[in-house]
Amino acid sequence: MKVKPIGIIHTPFKSKKDTPNQANKSNSIGKISVFKEYEQGLEGIEDFSHLILLFRFHKSRGYRLKVKRFLDNKLKGLFASRSPRRPNQLGLSVVKLVKRNGRFLLVRGVDMLDGTPLLDIKPYIPDLDRKEKIRIGRLVKK
Amino acid sequence: MKVKPIGIIHTPFKSKKDTPNQANKSNSIGKISVFKEYEQGLEGIEDFSHLILLFRFHKSRGYRLKVKRFLDNKLKGLFASRSPRRPNQLGLSVVKLVKRNGRFLLVRGVDMLDGTPLLDIKPYIPDLDRKEKIRIGRLVKK
Repeated sequence: MKVKPIGIIHTPFKSKKDTPNQANKSNSIGKISVFKEYEQGLEGIEDFSHLILLFRFHKSRGYRLKVKRFLDNKLKGLFASRSPRRPNQLGLSVVKLVKRNGRFLLVRGVDMLDGTPLLDIKPYIPDLDRKEKIRIGRLVKK
Repeated sequence: MKVKPIGIIHTPFKSKKDTPNQANKSNSIGKISVFKEYEQGLEGIEDFSHLILLFRFHKSRGYRLKVKRFLDNKLKGLFASRSPRRPNQLGLSVVKLVKRNGRFLLVRGVDMLDGTPLLDIKPYIPDLDRKEKIRIGRLVKK
């Protein structure tokens, strides 16, 4: 199966050490440039305050099935982490849509590297995406 | 860029007309079979009550940049919708983890077709994935 970028995400983060830790909120502004051929697909996106970005961890190479998670510093399974070093290198971030200008989107809350290839944009829909009674280890959030 | 399945999602939905509407919550049980080579990556996933599944809309062919959204029945941009007919055919659903048994996961809230190729599993982390003050058109959810 092949995937190809529908655009590029521009962020303030030029190298991996600059990027916010995956388990932390980011407040940084990013600019998404969607390729011209997909511009029509953005119509009406202003209706949504939040967007889900799917992208490629393009600087990530290979993966290990056990990783140190930020949360507890123990060795855990890769799929119990948000590590960028994963099969298929697929990344996901929820951002706030600040403004749309044609095929350009200004968003808040980016945490990926500058120049990241964008693979999809989905509207964030509370009934689907906002879950309650979340548990992370012993920590429960209502 | 190539992606390849890390497993298969089994659901009660044998055809498209059976699948829940994308804008609705599903309560259906699914069984995820992660391929043996990735089993170690699941260790510790029980720590999380909810998982984000990334998958391929494998029965979807092509896309249109304008689609009728379920929400309002108007013609809107594809990226303002959760339609399965999209470039890269990437799907995303947040499910509840009911039980892990080795490389098999029992989850609740599936809405994809039976036999869907799984591309990634990420833990659902409230600080990253649960947003407040969501707006969808004129509808605001706190």
